[in-house]
Amino acid sequence: MDRHISPVPLEKAYRLINHGPTVLVSARHDGTDNVMAAAWACALDFAPPKLTVVLDKSTKTRGLVEQSGAFVIQVPTAAQLQLTHELGTTTMFDAPDKLERFGATLFQVEGYDLPFVGGCSAWLACRLISEPHNQQAYDLFIGEVVAAWADNRVFKGGHWQFEHADPAWRSLHHVAGGHFYAIGEALHASNDGEG
Amino acid sequence: MDRHISPVPLEKAYRLINHGPTVLVSARHDGTDNVMAAAWACALDFAPPKLTVVLDKSTKTRGLVEQSGAFVIQVPTAAQLQLTHELGTTTMFDAPDKLERFGATLFQVEGYDLPFVGGCSAWLACRLISEPHNQQAYDLFIGEVVAAWADNRVFKGGHWQFEHADPAWRSLHHVAGGHFYAIGEALHASNDGEG
Repeated sequence: MDRHISPVPLEKAYRLINHGPTVLVSARHDGTDNVMAAAWACALDFAPPKLTVVLDKSTKTRGLVEQSGAFVIQVPTAAQLQLTHELGTTTMFDAPDKLERFGATLFQVEGYDLPFVGGCSAWLACRLISEPHNQQAYDLFIGEVVAAWADNRVFKGGHWQFEHADPAWRSLHHVAGGHFYAIGEALHASNDGEG
Repeated sequence: MDRHISPVPLEKAYRLINHGPTVLVSARHDGTDNVMAAAWACALDFAPPKLTVVLDKSTKTRGLVEQSGAFVIQVPTAAQLQLTHELGTTTMFDAPDKLERFGATLFQVEGYDLPFVGGCSAWLACRLISEPHNQQAYDLFIGEVVAAWADNRVFKGGHWQFEHADPAWRSLHHVAGGHFYAIGEALHASNDGEG
């Protein structure tokens, strides 16, 4: 694991996706690893941290999640714009070599039998909470975050550092058809009673 | 209704929240209107458009949604940073006058018995799809978007115009404790085969 990757306490894991980035979803089953992009991922709870992600029935990754009961949500960076777009628009059903073709690199984390995508800014390892009705009726999957990590060049001390980091680290926010916005300026509201 | 507010076709309504903004949730029941902020809102489907939003049991708005079966998701702007923070941290249970106190202005749309928050960039009128297990176990509410509008100074022709509009129109993306990021630079991936 890259020396810049640091554990994030579970109680702060929601912060990794609270600002609404487009994410990469990865999963492994029976010797197959896959990664897809998903704009429809969202925090669901603080403690234990949970999240939702929409996985269409047409995706290969969905089957891997259903079969293994686990997945990783990771936050790709502006430097991964093209990779994110390609992972989100090409299915492994059509392109069995999609990871190699698009240059996605995977790494391992000891104790987790899951594929982690290199070069991202944050990773949330999740255990699927089986909810068959949601999965079937809405393509909606719920995960409990069991561990989280972030690259300390852009997330440190429990806070994103987008305003101090290289712009290549900015998160991606997909609108439609390959059109994204990068995250922008930090804005701080005044907290009454907090001085 | 302000002359800048234009209908958004339902098939493009998901684009209003696809980039993960923090939203305002408003609802009305039995003469009471309320508005809260929510970072945990997410698109769920394209057609008919659906979305999810997490509404904690401690919020007044949740009860209004449950009782009326309807709500509005709206996208606040950087100009509404302080308003968004205050609507998200003060409950009407403690401050019955919270809307007046924080200066939230509501407007009506003919044909919809719902409170719409003025000054936002986009509005999605939703019908609650009752899912008692999700609501009780996860505080997770599913809505079908029945109509949508946007301010044409920042969303036009089916596309956000953040890169061309006044920075005051940027969407807000909450991290934690009143710390937000505004949406930033537009980035476009290359579409293979699309030239």
